[in-house]
Amino acid sequence: MTPDYLKSLLDDVRDGNTAVDAALEQLRQLPFQDLGFAQVDHHRQLRQGMPEVIFGEGKTIAQIERIMTAMSTKGSNVLVTRLDADKAQKILTIFPAASYHDEARCLTLEQKPIEHSGKGTILVVSAGTSDIPVASEALLTAGFLGNRVEHLYDVGVAGIHRLLARSEMLAAASVIIVVAGMEGALPSVVGGLVNKPVIAVPTSIGYGASFGGIAALLGMLNSCAAGVTVVNIDNGFGAACAASLMNRV
Amino acid sequence: MTPDYLKSLLDDVRDGNTAVDAALEQLRQLPFQDLGFAQVDHHRQLRQGMPEVIFGEGKTIAQIERIMTAMSTKGSNVLVTRLDADKAQKILTIFPAASYHDEARCLTLEQKPIEHSGKGTILVVSAGTSDIPVASEALLTAGFLGNRVEHLYDVGVAGIHRLLARSEMLAAASVIIVVAGMEGALPSVVGGLVNKPVIAVPTSIGYGASFGGIAALLGMLNSCAAGVTVVNIDNGFGAACAASLMNRV
Amino acid sequence: MTPDYLKSLLDDVRDGNTAVDAALEQLRQLPFQDLGFAQVDHHRQLRQGMPEVIFGEGKTIAQIERIMTAMSTKGSNVLVTRLDADKAQKILTIFPAASYHDEARCLTLEQKPIEHSGKGTILVVSAGTSDIPVASEALLTAGFLGNRVEHLYDVGVAGIHRLLARSEMLAAASVIIVVAGMEGALPSVVGGLVNKPVIAVPTSIGYGASFGGIAALLGMLNSCAAGVTVVNIDNGFGAACAASLMNRV
Amino acid sequence: MTPDYLKSLLDDVRDGNTAVDAALEQLRQLPFQDLGFAQVDHHRQLRQGMPEVIFGEGKTIAQIERIMTAMSTKGSNVLVTRLDADKAQKILTIFPAASYHDEARCLTLEQKPIEHSGKGTILVVSAGTSDIPVASEALLTAGFLGNRVEHLYDVGVAGIHRLLARSEMLAAASVIIVVAGMEGALPSVVGGLVNKPVIAVPTSIGYGASFGGIAALLGMLNSCAAGVTVVNIDNGFGAACAASLMNRV
Amino acid sequence: MTPDYLKSLLDDVRDGNTAVDAALEQLRQLPFQDLGFAQVDHHRQLRQGMPEVIFGEGKTIAQIERIMTAMSTKGSNVLVTRLDADKAQKILTIFPAASYHDEARCLTLEQKPIEHSGKGTILVVSAGTSDIPVASEALLTAGFLGNRVEHLYDVGVAGIHRLLARSEMLAAASVIIVVAGMEGALPSVVGGLVNKPVIAVPTSIGYGASFGGIAALLGMLNSCAAGVTVVNIDNGFGAACAASLMNRV
Amino acid sequence: MTPDYLKSLLDDVRDGNTAVDAALEQLRQLPFQDLGFAQVDHHRQLRQGMPEVIFGEGKTIAQIERIMTAMSTKGSNVLVTRLDADKAQKILTIFPAASYHDEARCLTLEQKPIEHSGKGTILVVSAGTSDIPVASEALLTAGFLGNRVEHLYDVGVAGIHRLLARSEMLAAASVIIVVAGMEGALPSVVGGLVNKPVIAVPTSIGYGASFGGIAALLGMLNSCAAGVTVVNIDNGFGAACAASLMNRV
Amino acid sequence: MTPDYLKSLLDDVRDGNTAVDAALEQLRQLPFQDLGFAQVDHHRQLRQGMPEVIFGEGKTIAQIERIMTAMSTKGSNVLVTRLDADKAQKILTIFPAASYHDEARCLTLEQKPIEHSGKGTILVVSAGTSDIPVASEALLTAGFLGNRVEHLYDVGVAGIHRLLARSEMLAAASVIIVVAGMEGALPSVVGGLVNKPVIAVPTSIGYGASFGGIAALLGMLNSCAAGVTVVNIDNGFGAACAASLMNRV
Amino acid sequence: MTPDYLKSLLDDVRDGNTAVDAALEQLRQLPFQDLGFAQVDHHRQLRQGMPEVIFGEGKTIAQIERIMTAMSTKGSNVLVTRLDADKAQKILTIFPAASYHDEARCLTLEQKPIEHSGKGTILVVSAGTSDIPVASEALLTAGFLGNRVEHLYDVGVAGIHRLLARSEMLAAASVIIVVAGMEGALPSVVGGLVNKPVIAVPTSIGYGASFGGIAALLGMLNSCAAGVTVVNIDNGFGAACAASLMNRV
Repeated sequence: MTPDYLKSLLDDVRDGNTAVDAALEQLRQLPFQDLGFAQVDHHRQLRQGMPEVIFGEGKTIAQIERIMTAMSTKGSNVLVTRLDADKAQKILTIFPAASYHDEARCLTLEQKPIEHSGKGTILVVSAGTSDIPVASEALLTAGFLGNRVEHLYDVGVAGIHRLLARSEMLAAASVIIVVAGMEGALPSVVGGLVNKPVIAVPTSIGYGASFGGIAALLGMLNSCAAGVTVVNIDNGFGAACAASLMNRV
Repeated sequence: MTPDYLKSLLDDVRDGNTAVDAALEQLRQLPFQDLGFAQVDHHRQLRQGMPEVIFGEGKTIAQIERIMTAMSTKGSNVLVTRLDADKAQKILTIFPAASYHDEARCLTLEQKPIEHSGKGTILVVSAGTSDIPVASEALLTAGFLGNRVEHLYDVGVAGIHRLLARSEMLAAASVIIVVAGMEGALPSVVGGLVNKPVIAVPTSIGYGASFGGIAALLGMLNSCAAGVTVVNIDNGFGAACAASLMNRV
Repeated sequence: MTPDYLKSLLDDVRDGNTAVDAALEQLRQLPFQDLGFAQVDHHRQLRQGMPEVIFGEGKTIAQIERIMTAMSTKGSNVLVTRLDADKAQKILTIFPAASYHDEARCLTLEQKPIEHSGKGTILVVSAGTSDIPVASEALLTAGFLGNRVEHLYDVGVAGIHRLLARSEMLAAASVIIVVAGMEGALPSVVGGLVNKPVIAVPTSIGYGASFGGIAALLGMLNSCAAGVTVVNIDNGFGAACAASLMNRV
Repeated sequence: MTPDYLKSLLDDVRDGNTAVDAALEQLRQLPFQDLGFAQVDHHRQLRQGMPEVIFGEGKTIAQIERIMTAMSTKGSNVLVTRLDADKAQKILTIFPAASYHDEARCLTLEQKPIEHSGKGTILVVSAGTSDIPVASEALLTAGFLGNRVEHLYDVGVAGIHRLLARSEMLAAASVIIVVAGMEGALPSVVGGLVNKPVIAVPTSIGYGASFGGIAALLGMLNSCAAGVTVVNIDNGFGAACAASLMNRV
Repeated sequence: MTPDYLKSLLDDVRDGNTAVDAALEQLRQLPFQDLGFAQVDHHRQLRQGMPEVIFGEGKTIAQIERIMTAMSTKGSNVLVTRLDADKAQKILTIFPAASYHDEARCLTLEQKPIEHSGKGTILVVSAGTSDIPVASEALLTAGFLGNRVEHLYDVGVAGIHRLLARSEMLAAASVIIVVAGMEGALPSVVGGLVNKPVIAVPTSIGYGASFGGIAALLGMLNSCAAGVTVVNIDNGFGAACAASLMNRV
Repeated sequence: MTPDYLKSLLDDVRDGNTAVDAALEQLRQLPFQDLGFAQVDHHRQLRQGMPEVIFGEGKTIAQIERIMTAMSTKGSNVLVTRLDADKAQKILTIFPAASYHDEARCLTLEQKPIEHSGKGTILVVSAGTSDIPVASEALLTAGFLGNRVEHLYDVGVAGIHRLLARSEMLAAASVIIVVAGMEGALPSVVGGLVNKPVIAVPTSIGYGASFGGIAALLGMLNSCAAGVTVVNIDNGFGAACAASLMNRV
Repeated sequence: MTPDYLKSLLDDVRDGNTAVDAALEQLRQLPFQDLGFAQVDHHRQLRQGMPEVIFGEGKTIAQIERIMTAMSTKGSNVLVTRLDADKAQKILTIFPAASYHDEARCLTLEQKPIEHSGKGTILVVSAGTSDIPVASEALLTAGFLGNRVEHLYDVGVAGIHRLLARSEMLAAASVIIVVAGMEGALPSVVGGLVNKPVIAVPTSIGYGASFGGIAALLGMLNSCAAGVTVVNIDNGFGAACAASLMNRV
Repeated sequence: MTPDYLKSLLDDVRDGNTAVDAALEQLRQLPFQDLGFAQVDHHRQLRQGMPEVIFGEGKTIAQIERIMTAMSTKGSNVLVTRLDADKAQKILTIFPAASYHDEARCLTLEQKPIEHSGKGTILVVSAGTSDIPVASEALLTAGFLGNRVEHLYDVGVAGIHRLLARSEMLAAASVIIVVAGMEGALPSVVGGLVNKPVIAVPTSIGYGASFGGIAALLGMLNSCAAGVTVVNIDNGFGAACAASLMNRV
């Protein structure tokens, strides 16, 4: 229900084409429905060309199939995150046009080309080889949301020269996602080297006192580099969503 | 030391104007010093017109005075955060041109006009009246870093209509900082209403199981609204720094 | 043992029909037994028509069968909660009159009709699709305890319009159970919209810093909406029991 | 803005007394304002005769005075919670008609008589003498919200006979608030004795491994007595609000 | 109310000396009261010669005076624990016969001699000099409860020879209370040297990762020496109560 | 090496039967060996008739077999705790004289009769049916260590009358082990009813905010009943060892 | 790129053999690469005769094979840690010259003899038999890094004489690694007996309130013996690396 | 009591100069006393020239004076740590030869010159200016224990170039103590740059989610740089003791 519609409703009341009671009933439900559609439109990325997203973990193959069918019939691009290889194989037999991305544990169904509308490049940096799955989820999501992306992996702080050797790559990015487990120190170092928003993603990599990512999370929240913000442990997808919004400010 | 300087050094070696050993010595220290100055230049806000920042908590008046003197003689604008009223009064007697901002617990010394170079407006939203000190720190910092700012206070989720009534204000911002204590639910609701980066700031407001802001922090990290990133508890300053970078992507 | 019985015992002693020693022996065990039965009677729902409840988790099929047999021979209705599908199939072969409720992971044996004796309707609201198992347990239990029930699912705070569009449903309920994982913000929003008791149920849904439901639990305990009370993580059954008592105040 | 007002607006449009554009402008802001006032009306206790509440902790005397003045000029009854004795003395000099309740750390300003509209009695039970401040806050609040109240103090589980001796008092209540620190076991015992909603309030009383009320909070969340719900540590006020709503189901 | 009394009541009913209704009324309150008095008698140390105990922390001088007066008029010995020196001085002016024990932060009023009725000696061992206040509370309490006591201080595990040199003292005790902060390792070592019940008392001594005694508490709960049981942090009083019961098994 | 042996060694030196160097060599190792054997003798229960104990969890069948063989050849009674049924079946084929106790998850090999040398009876009380495995481990261990034992199960605090009805059983015990999960309130109630040492054993039973037994553990450490001591979560064996020592004070 | 190489580059520029632009390009990448190699050289043990290390956990057999192939072709010795027996068997079929060490869960490929270049002996001490896997990882790593090693197992603090009997072994070591789970008390006792650096390794051995090694970790961090430093839970490898560096100071 | 003494005792027995019973009595106490004195001698730094240490926190001025007097009469050097300025002033009036070190909060009494017996230099590195008190305690202690010391302050990871510019200083040290609060990332970076033992000291500096140093502590325990060991939060003294031992391996 647009402002135009609202105006025509009032015109109809004025002209006697719609009774006051009938108009009243329509108005009673209006604001939330209107707001609702507006919100979905701006916020849930239902606009032409933007992907739909399904959080795959804990959903059955049948549930995923049902949602994907509903989405794909609208011609949308679809992204399924947190999907293990076994489930993915079965879904690929139903949607042969889809692709599974092993490292990122994501499945994509691209029904129309992705346009790169962001201002610059989103760079995904990761500390250790074990952080790569989370980094890949971020990289793939950022690309799927219509951003140019690059990555720089295995540049942990215990070998700081590897990071410094790529300082031009850091300087060229518009937004940087830094993925790290264990002590989670990499975002602070990166944040000290650049003048761009840095999104820190703690990973659950580690053992003992890493407590499933808490050590990395706390390290990032306490970063001494201003300009670093943090998302939930292992939340590569959320980091990419935030980066994509930042890339369109 | 610029690439040009490096080239002229090599030219000198080639032309015999500089001995190999002398050049060797200069090159040995070059990269880090160069990198260092470059970083300070781009990252530590030494550029003309940007403020210098002092974290006031735990510093003595003498220490703050000494740092402020060093900074002010360079003609910089200076921001002192986390400064209580008692210390501030004494510093104002030394720097009468400075101003103290009670609610934000910040002191500013403005020696040259602040230019608004960001792309849009940074909006600071807060949940309860007790969250206002942290929100004020964010608001003041964002303005001091050269951004247009607006604020919207006391719109907690238990009275959701107050927030919804201002949806145009939310839609008009380029970056939104959301400050909330207790259950920390406001960033999720705001994140669901807009299509802009949302920076969530948990506050230590609350009692009992709020655990000094942990409840709010966890709530924000687990936000179901994609696009929300989080900073440390009570870190209004850090949120503003991040927002300022986002406002310049 | 009722007061009447006690009086008749004393009458018998007075009239010489019961010896003092025999009466003494009966009285020695009386108060606790009496209290015991009274408690069981009022509190453990042994009254005609009320269900018996078995917590299925960690019990073997043989144990559940033995308890169900004892209960069903008394003609009681029986509810088994936290029962996985495999165990349920085997129990259904023993009690063919029972039904298994997949989503709620509950089994019910209804031997006499359930009367709806509560004052109003208990409404179960849930935030995300993954919270539905816990919501279903609450819904089924509340109905089995003799309450009219309704539900409203998938109305999380990141899409607040979906909740607002159903405000009449909220207003019509007498007690509301709100089930949510992740940041657990929904009960605060619901509590701000209605004037009824709201029981918040955190779920273990989420990952990383959700810590198996702790984030949601803390969010709910710190709710800024007065009138919200909280039960244990995933405790849909307990929420329904409490709601049922509230519905009979 | 009531439905009546909305209808008369539409009547005016129909009759040509109000131009469509003017009506449009009014309607644009309507739903949220309307919702807002409605919510405030039903939920925020702005109805005639209900008290207004100020959370006193962390507010200055000037702030409290300003809010109280605004409220009292509307003729409302006012309740200030978490107010220490020093501040209270100063406020009493400004509002001589107010009363300070030492044990409950609350101040009340009663401008019109409180009507008892709840269905039954709210009973406040507490475990130790140190829990009495929290219990008193609950007791006073429940009374101020228009409920008949009773209390039963110092009946901790280590002397279980003291509680059992008062079982009639427990049985006569419509809602029971149980306040306990240390191991927080009392709500489970009470919940096993009655057939009424029990609201458990953990207190921060204790030392060492009581961790400021966490031990009691966890004990209550894990209560083996169905029908027990929990509020935040030391939140006597919140328990009373919830009890008051339950007493009106 | 003893069994004898109950029998005589029934005799009176049989003989017509007491009406059934009057007997009924007496019986209605009997069991819990009877149980109550019995419990208090056996459990709460109301027997002739045993001390009464007041937990002093958080009580005002007036409250302590009122309770002490009630107790002392019964001729009981009185123990006040967790009493700071300032309060104690004021109480000593009211009860000049009382004594204050600085290290143990306890006040005692001894109105009749303490009999040593335990089977053997309770030995209190402590690790560091900072643990002595808690150890003193245990020592004084154990003596006041009628046990022979000895102590062995400053025998921490980093100087294990000091403990080993006193192995005869350890062997001679009937129950051993071991008080330790920091890593809380001493109870394990003592438990490995003796064949007697060892009660471990963690203290809040330490800094950083001692977390107010949690490190010591966890160390003691995980003791590899069977026969070690644990009480709350700093709970010297509780350890002495338990030791006193063990000394009378 | 006994004092007698030491004396005879010195006699031999005096009489010239042993060279000083040979004696020196023996003495060099003496004190620790002597201490060692003494400790093992008194503390590790190597005395005639006492069982040897093997912690079965994490040990392979081969390891357990090797240790059992070594022990059984000495004619000792052997107790293996934390042994699952699968491993037990295989060990029973090797040691057909052994018995496996399913509920307690323990295996015993009784090569000589167990003498009951304790002073009184150790009573094991448990709250819920799910706590029975831990209670059984305690019961079996206490019996195996030579104590008379009794048990009282399923007397949780939500049905307090069941416990009160057995108060004579409680009063007759010399030491009471109380096993409880969830809120862990039972030891406080029992401790308030008796005048004997109470050993509280938290169990990992529960879900959500029970945190694997932490809620129960904290509840027990904060018990308001003096005389209660606590062991590690699920440590039925340790409770029985401590109770056995208390039963011999 | 060595200083010599840098000098020869400058010589070439001076002599006209290398153009300035070509030299410039080489220099641009130089410092970090140079630093990099230097760091790797000094820090990552790429020097002749030192092992390469692969953290096996979470890596596939294919990944490990690829890295091992790259390393072994350089003639390096290779150490794979945290490798389970199944994966190891498959790797042994590819690298038949390698050996698998079951207890330590490590695989080694020794292509040239290990030289013992450390100053003294590294002694690995462990508390219980369950701590042996972590101790073995430390022992094997320390030896592989070129240190003389010894071990002393099963000397927990509950049988302190076993440790004391080996005090000469402790005194003879240059660095001591102490591995312990449960209460983690052993490092404090060892630290009190010797005058050498002690590295404490908490293990995840235990149950209940051991919290996967947290109890032991906290115990070690709070050690009352000065000179004790701590590594992460179960990090035998890290302890050995640190010990090896200390053995070369 | 030395081996020589033991031999002469046996000689006396052989020669009849000492009776067997008298020898027996001496031997009975020997091992522990001997061990004890030996341990104290080697371990507790009673050797000529080494300082005695008093932990000042929580001790009264009188207690410190008494211990210092006992120590100083033996001619020892004395170090008092964790001593605030007020207490220090009063102690300086008693011991005018002592010095107070404000930043390190330590007092020293140097009665004989400190010899530098360590092999190399201990370098103390710190991240922020607020970490300097802890760094100073480490620096002063290391010097007092007879080591050459250097320091490098304010080289946090957000300005990594400052650290890299001093890489020669890092390379020249024999042991490095790294002090850092907030995210605690500095030890990992330092550990990656050097080939020496690195002792990490977390500080309680920070706010919000730094949790009094826990974030830094966890970061350090999870360091990805092998060779880093950790001490308790704020434990500069302990780090220096460990470094001093390492400097003498």
